[in-house]
Amino acid sequence: MSTPDTFHVYDTTLRDGAQQEGLNLSVADKLAIARHIDGLGVGFIEGGWPGANPKDTEFFAKAREELKLQNAQLAAFGATRRAGIKAADDPLIAALRDSGAGVVTLVAKSHDRHVELALRTTLEENLAMVRDTVSHLRAEGQRVFVDAEHFFNGYRENRAYALEVLNVAFEAGADVVALCDTNGGMLPNWVSDVVDDVLSSTSGRIGIHAHNDTGCAVANSLAAVEAGASHVQGCINGYGERTGNADLINVVANLELKLDRQVLPAGLLRDATRIAHAVAEVTNVPPSSRQPYVGVSAFAHKAGLHASAIKVDPNLYQHMDPEGIGNDMRLLVSDMAGRASIELKGRELGFELGKDVIVEVTAKVKELEQRGYTFDAADASFELLLAEAVEGSRPSYFEVESWRVITDSAPGEEAGSEATVKLMAGGDRLVVTGEGNGPVNALDHALRRAIQQLYPEIVKFELIDYKVRIVDQGHGTDAITRVLIETSDGESSWVTVGVGHNVIEASWEALVDGLAFGLRRHGA
Amino acid sequence: MSTPDTFHVYDTTLRDGAQQEGLNLSVADKLAIARHIDGLGVGFIEGGWPGANPKDTEFFAKAREELKLQNAQLAAFGATRRAGIKAADDPLIAALRDSGAGVVTLVAKSHDRHVELALRTTLEENLAMVRDTVSHLRAEGQRVFVDAEHFFNGYRENRAYALEVLNVAFEAGADVVALCDTNGGMLPNWVSDVVDDVLSSTSGRIGIHAHNDTGCAVANSLAAVEAGASHVQGCINGYGERTGNADLINVVANLELKLDRQVLPAGLLRDATRIAHAVAEVTNVPPSSRQPYVGVSAFAHKAGLHASAIKVDPNLYQHMDPEGIGNDMRLLVSDMAGRASIELKGRELGFELGKDVIVEVTAKVKELEQRGYTFDAADASFELLLAEAVEGSRPSYFEVESWRVITDSAPGEEAGSEATVKLMAGGDRLVVTGEGNGPVNALDHALRRAIQQLYPEIVKFELIDYKVRIVDQGHGTDAITRVLIETSDGESSWVTVGVGHNVIEASWEALVDGLAFGLRRHGA
Repeated sequence: MSTPDTFHVYDTTLRDGAQQEGLNLSVADKLAIARHIDGLGVGFIEGGWPGANPKDTEFFAKAREELKLQNAQLAAFGATRRAGIKAADDPLIAALRDSGAGVVTLVAKSHDRHVELALRTTLEENLAMVRDTVSHLRAEGQRVFVDAEHFFNGYRENRAYALEVLNVAFEAGADVVALCDTNGGMLPNWVSDVVDDVLSSTSGRIGIHAHNDTGCAVANSLAAVEAGASHVQGCINGYGERTGNADLINVVANLELKLDRQVLPAGLLRDATRIAHAVAEVTNVPPSSRQPYVGVSAFAHKAGLHASAIKVDPNLYQHMDPEGIGNDMRLLVSDMAGRASIELKGRELGFELGKDVIVEVTAKVKELEQRGYTFDAADASFELLLAEAVEGSRPSYFEVESWRVITDSAPGEEAGSEATVKLMAGGDRLVVTGEGNGPVNALDHALRRAIQQLYPEIVKFELIDYKVRIVDQGHGTDAITRVLIETSDGESSWVTVGVGHNVIEASWEALVDGLAFGLRRHGA
Repeated sequence: MSTPDTFHVYDTTLRDGAQQEGLNLSVADKLAIARHIDGLGVGFIEGGWPGANPKDTEFFAKAREELKLQNAQLAAFGATRRAGIKAADDPLIAALRDSGAGVVTLVAKSHDRHVELALRTTLEENLAMVRDTVSHLRAEGQRVFVDAEHFFNGYRENRAYALEVLNVAFEAGADVVALCDTNGGMLPNWVSDVVDDVLSSTSGRIGIHAHNDTGCAVANSLAAVEAGASHVQGCINGYGERTGNADLINVVANLELKLDRQVLPAGLLRDATRIAHAVAEVTNVPPSSRQPYVGVSAFAHKAGLHASAIKVDPNLYQHMDPEGIGNDMRLLVSDMAGRASIELKGRELGFELGKDVIVEVTAKVKELEQRGYTFDAADASFELLLAEAVEGSRPSYFEVESWRVITDSAPGEEAGSEATVKLMAGGDRLVVTGEGNGPVNALDHALRRAIQQLYPEIVKFELIDYKVRIVDQGHGTDAITRVLIETSDGESSWVTVGVGHNVIEASWEALVDGLAFGLRRHGA
């Protein structure tokens, strides 16, 4: 483990973040997101509630088999045992113990009225539940963290009881208690005062879990850390219920870049912008261009009046060097940005790019991104574009003449699609028809049938993900759509992008590039 | 004027907010936004820079004629005079004086390096420019505010000079100097310390102008006010360059609702949600559902486990009564949902559900969510499902016999789509064809053409968002797809969901439900 334990950066995107309205993650999504977040170097990734939720149970089972994390440990989230039974007899506690996660995070009530009204038990029994569950899991060899739910409201109503819950958790062996602003109504000075008091009234590591209902989640998290908390929870892109959780990248960036506290393995924060965007592609929630630190506008300047001063010293007009977070300064209406990153990216992909090629590719990328393309999430399309610039022509394995796809339905029957593709390949003109569950599936089948004799390796290729998004929101089905297609050859996978007014046309572009990229990789 | 002068709420949406990437306001837009913001009861609305910008000159001219503000005064923004001339001889200063605005807000450099590198003049001349411009405008009878640009960075580099600029401004007659965190890199504790020092080193009213680059614009504004600032600047919906300015409604809501400081005329904060959304309609920037206080998700709960406790006391689960800001509590229906939340959600939608209906709907929702539907993002589909359970049959305005859609392309041409829909409506069998940019657009056109004579209200309906995703990732275009469609009638919008192997079929389901929901709402 390269991430030290002195300060905990604890990600809860997969659990609390997933509570966001409209966000619905499959097990595969959760695995993909965990890999991205691990790349940021956080210490802990809370994966969900195994035992209470079949999807989360499956996530932990799959994670044991196939998730190789470099930096983070998984945490399994769950509640203290039910009232009136022993922790050892509670099947939900057993599920936590058996999840395979390195840490169990138990949510415990610390607000007296929630104990009585939501949990419907006595204040004494709630303390026993905390003590018994933590001790039991510790005895079973688990590391245990505790989330003190509704702590700040509970502290206001009944300080003594809220503190007693913390003390019981620490005595029973909890490594950290995170103070949760579950309803999100706190302000920074209040958080400071409470954390101050808690640290002098208990003896253990204190954490903070903030929500953004007052627009202060990031500031509240910093206030807690400055008051002595050494465990901070949050979500990538500030996902979460209501107004969201603290944006974890914002919190970490402020700690490292503003307050000089190294909390991630050195250098990893430079991947934060890429990771934030990659996670947004998986969740399919359009990221805010105004997002602090990682938003596409975060370092964008309407140069105008001060363009020459920016050239003299860009730091006069930005609060930090955007490279520190993997973002770029952008001068709007200018072509100054991006060349360095194109050069780096090319090198990463094995191309040593000459100056002219860099200029050409930078211009091309800018033009295409203007039209709705994204290359952050579509490495394979970017590599084809680089190959075209370096080799003079786009890798091409067949020449499409035309295609057509028909989808029809009648009541009571599933709709079916049929596609016809006309193309030249290997010197022959081929006209091939394919059927499918949907139009893109039918086009995919027709295209494969047409070229599989010439390129038998495509039998291994499979489309494993397909995403559509409106780029210029505001006109619905009449707008520009962007399609991302992920193709696998069973060993690795790659993503291609297509853009167009017509979703089928955009899909076709991504489909054709997906096959072309795979054929190129396989040396066809 | 009903807004007292003891505390200034100063809106700069029309000036600094308009610097946001992609935001482009016409004079009519600016007038409309000014009326909305006036309804919030702010004291000042900064309208732009007359004289420097023809659009802003026209805005002030039109405002004099036709803008009747109830609460706010307009402020005209501009710079101190040019170096080397008298303020009385600077045509830009004359334009400010003649704008008709109640206040002139002058931007002044307070950072020594900006004076030298951007303004290209001496530190002494910059002080003279501040003194001369403020005195001149005061002598002409103007009230003058000063924005100390890059103040916080300037203070760090050369505290004495930064404070001298403030003192010169106050001595020349400025009513307030706003400390601008122009580059947005500050944190709350730093703001506190600086405001503290400034207040003890100068004698005049201090204001704060914060940007959100660290995710702390709201907290920074509060920190300044708690340290003694009594003038706060910000923008509706946090618009602004890069990551935006402080969200003015968030700042005011925290001041009034959390810190008990009445800064708007009593009662007006209850219009804040409506006003934030109305401004977003004018700017055409889709509002964030997660926006603190006013976002559509800001008081939305996935009830699930705690639905019964919410029934007992909703305040256990929210940081304030959403009425205080003109927002509403909403319960989301998700796969975690139990009967209690279905009952509450039904009541919210105006259905008094019997026990049998609740059991039936709960089972139906669980079954549909298992198949890939999501209702927390598709309220309208859920309402149709409830209506079906309560009224015995699904609201139906036409009966579809079949549909077909063809998309084809040839190289060099944009792909086109053509749809044919056969249906019964109003006793007639209708066979109608529509063309479109894509298959769903073509189906939408055909369907509307078929029924618009019978239901003329659908002319107002517009598809404003369309999203597709794979539900069971792993098989790409062969998998189950989920489509979410948002339809608007120009006043409100609603989301419907469709699911199927075939993306076109799923889109068709969401499309048909979107029209059915709209027709039902409009009483067809």
